[in-house]
Amino acid sequence: MRMYDIIKKKRDGGELSTEEIDFFIRGVTDGSIPDYQISALCMAIYYRGMSVRETCDLTFAVRDSGDKTDFSAIKGIRVDKHSTGGVGDKTSLVVAPIVAALGVKVAKMSGRGLGHTGGTVDKLEAIDGFRTTLSEEEFIAQVNRIGLAIVGQSRQFAPADKKLYALRDVTATVDSMPLIAASIMGKKLAADDDCIVLDVKTGSGSFMKSVEKSRELAQLMVDIGKSAGKKMVALITNMDRPLGYAIGNSLEVIEAVETLCGRGPADFTEVCLTLAGHMLSLAGMGTPEEGRELAKQVIADGRALKKFAEVVAAQGGDASLIEDPSKFKKAKYEYPVKSAVSGYIHGVDTEAYGLSSLMLGAGRNTAEDAIDYSAGIVLKKKTGEFVQKGETIAVLYSDNATCFVAAAEKLLAATAVEREKPADEPLVYGVVV
Amino acid sequence: MRMYDIIKKKRDGGELSTEEIDFFIRGVTDGSIPDYQISALCMAIYYRGMSVRETCDLTFAVRDSGDKTDFSAIKGIRVDKHSTGGVGDKTSLVVAPIVAALGVKVAKMSGRGLGHTGGTVDKLEAIDGFRTTLSEEEFIAQVNRIGLAIVGQSRQFAPADKKLYALRDVTATVDSMPLIAASIMGKKLAADDDCIVLDVKTGSGSFMKSVEKSRELAQLMVDIGKSAGKKMVALITNMDRPLGYAIGNSLEVIEAVETLCGRGPADFTEVCLTLAGHMLSLAGMGTPEEGRELAKQVIADGRALKKFAEVVAAQGGDASLIEDPSKFKKAKYEYPVKSAVSGYIHGVDTEAYGLSSLMLGAGRNTAEDAIDYSAGIVLKKKTGEFVQKGETIAVLYSDNATCFVAAAEKLLAATAVEREKPADEPLVYGVVV
Repeated sequence: MRMYDIIKKKRDGGELSTEEIDFFIRGVTDGSIPDYQISALCMAIYYRGMSVRETCDLTFAVRDSGDKTDFSAIKGIRVDKHSTGGVGDKTSLVVAPIVAALGVKVAKMSGRGLGHTGGTVDKLEAIDGFRTTLSEEEFIAQVNRIGLAIVGQSRQFAPADKKLYALRDVTATVDSMPLIAASIMGKKLAADDDCIVLDVKTGSGSFMKSVEKSRELAQLMVDIGKSAGKKMVALITNMDRPLGYAIGNSLEVIEAVETLCGRGPADFTEVCLTLAGHMLSLAGMGTPEEGRELAKQVIADGRALKKFAEVVAAQGGDASLIEDPSKFKKAKYEYPVKSAVSGYIHGVDTEAYGLSSLMLGAGRNTAEDAIDYSAGIVLKKKTGEFVQKGETIAVLYSDNATCFVAAAEKLLAATAVEREKPADEPLVYGVVV
Repeated sequence: MRMYDIIKKKRDGGELSTEEIDFFIRGVTDGSIPDYQISALCMAIYYRGMSVRETCDLTFAVRDSGDKTDFSAIKGIRVDKHSTGGVGDKTSLVVAPIVAALGVKVAKMSGRGLGHTGGTVDKLEAIDGFRTTLSEEEFIAQVNRIGLAIVGQSRQFAPADKKLYALRDVTATVDSMPLIAASIMGKKLAADDDCIVLDVKTGSGSFMKSVEKSRELAQLMVDIGKSAGKKMVALITNMDRPLGYAIGNSLEVIEAVETLCGRGPADFTEVCLTLAGHMLSLAGMGTPEEGRELAKQVIADGRALKKFAEVVAAQGGDASLIEDPSKFKKAKYEYPVKSAVSGYIHGVDTEAYGLSSLMLGAGRNTAEDAIDYSAGIVLKKKTGEFVQKGETIAVLYSDNATCFVAAAEKLLAATAVEREKPADEPLVYGVVV
């Protein structure tokens, strides 16, 4: 088999065989296929697409390119939620304790933030002492004991994806539906879950800028997951605005705790309840609506918050911060961002909000950068709200006061203020099964 | 300027600016653009194509990536002929002496053979003592003195093309009209000629397998040449059969000498007269038909052959071989290839004929391979002729007898013999101006 022939076949619109796709991904993984052939094939796939069968094969080959977990020692049904990446997206911190409080197992391996998107692992590390690295035995024992553990991805999952993504990123071949689906699902399927709820973000802060494209991607990923034997559902959710008011690591943990107490922002709470409802439903606990009611109950009776505190304590974190989030270390400096005009806040560029937070020290430009856990943004006004000229629309937090002016400019430039009230947009555009 | 943005623009069907194309080719030449970005752009160009303006800019950037010649010291009009590469194509050895005998200057820099196609320089080196390397002063002085000199491309013409072609060759992006045109014309325009006659081969032994595609390529290259200020014409000629009967270096020189004596094969003579007629016409010597008549005259009166002998002597070659080609060293072994059936010879796979000759030692697999100058094939039967079962259709020549069986098999497999006489095909499909 020759890579040349595989490129030519796809170039001419042919359907690659399972063997050809395996050959390609093996060569990507072991380095035997040169970068210039990989990028040429990615561009051909960009134009010619892939059938569902090819995309499944590609996903499975990516999944099989590295380590896989074995969760068979975990008793009970294992559910996970996976987001395609957003700004201010702290849903995992809320939905995982909710479903675990209801007896469903969540063995969560999360990523770190890069660029404008945050990562669950970074948020948890904002809690003093929280260990995001556990041995496999500790991890499984904790899930069996209290229903939930959250760690970073220490093992080498889907190394082929890492290589492929790095090349796609510099050759304008990221925006390809089958390549995106295989990248996300290849990594996701390397974990050994029974049920997966996908949160496919749509809008300015996400991969997919249109609802139609997001729906198409969601359907493709659901089909891939099902063909791997998983129970699957995907929600299409709005990322044309940040979720909730907080962006930044400890700021988001605080907002998650508020939400687990029943005092969270309406939009964020709504998305969490919907996601949790579907997770519980997939795990066999009734319809999504029934699951949603159960979720509301464990928030109301304090069991969800208690579960979160239990997980924090089990992983060495200071649980008193969860009981009293006002004890979180504050940023040295804060800076109000004021509106230059009066009017209603219209569409915001969510990605730019994420970049503004990154400038404050809340994220990383490269994988080696250190994080300022207390840095970030708390929005005072969101899409649809009225703001007076001179009124504060957001407060910036950082230990480095020199970054405020640029970060404030970035945020203001990303915020359209107009005379008319904008039309309401749904938080959840649809459910794909 | 970023290569990423250039790839994305072309990917989305945009027209690249002159500056973007210059940036790309500069980066290819100096190595600052990585291979994986070059191949991704080539694939995007494969799908999206290029406007004539973009193709001209690409050609000029390729031309300007390396050395250029300055022929201003040559007195008179400089004409060249360039073939897109064929099998058994020894036309340069015939047309260059013809037009030089008529007072038109030919300052010819030729290539070596690679793979199934031969090269003029290799053919000339089959003549004992012939020097294909001259200093620039020697070269120009010889053209001024006797009207013709033929050397190898010792200087670094169009290094960007060398790099691009090597990548295209392994990423299935060779078959792109603008990339082919820029590759051929970028090198051609680095030489300082006034008039160029292109011989665009079409059919099984060439780049372009269909007449329509060949015509399109010819028109594009003519337009590029004109926009660089050259007088241009292109002929579309048949490469669905080898030209003449001889394939292999000294065998082809012998056939060229026969043709210069007026005893050459009809098809090969016809193509040479047509090409020479157009070269003379571009140089201001009347219509192509009038040029053709002049060409016939210098063959008939011996001036063309005398000019060839003069060039051979001037470049240190043994001119007695031109006066008496039977003195060429013979191959140690010969081997008749016999037809297994009776019938008419139909379409042949000319590329396979070239590969059979390569197997006999007449060509190179890699640029470092040595050549057996007396090796090759002399056809006894060509397309349209009747052959009896057991009759010899070709004789193979080589100093290595072990390669005969495989080379004969290759040749037989590439030769279709059928009951009915095939329809005649034109030798010249058209003229593009």
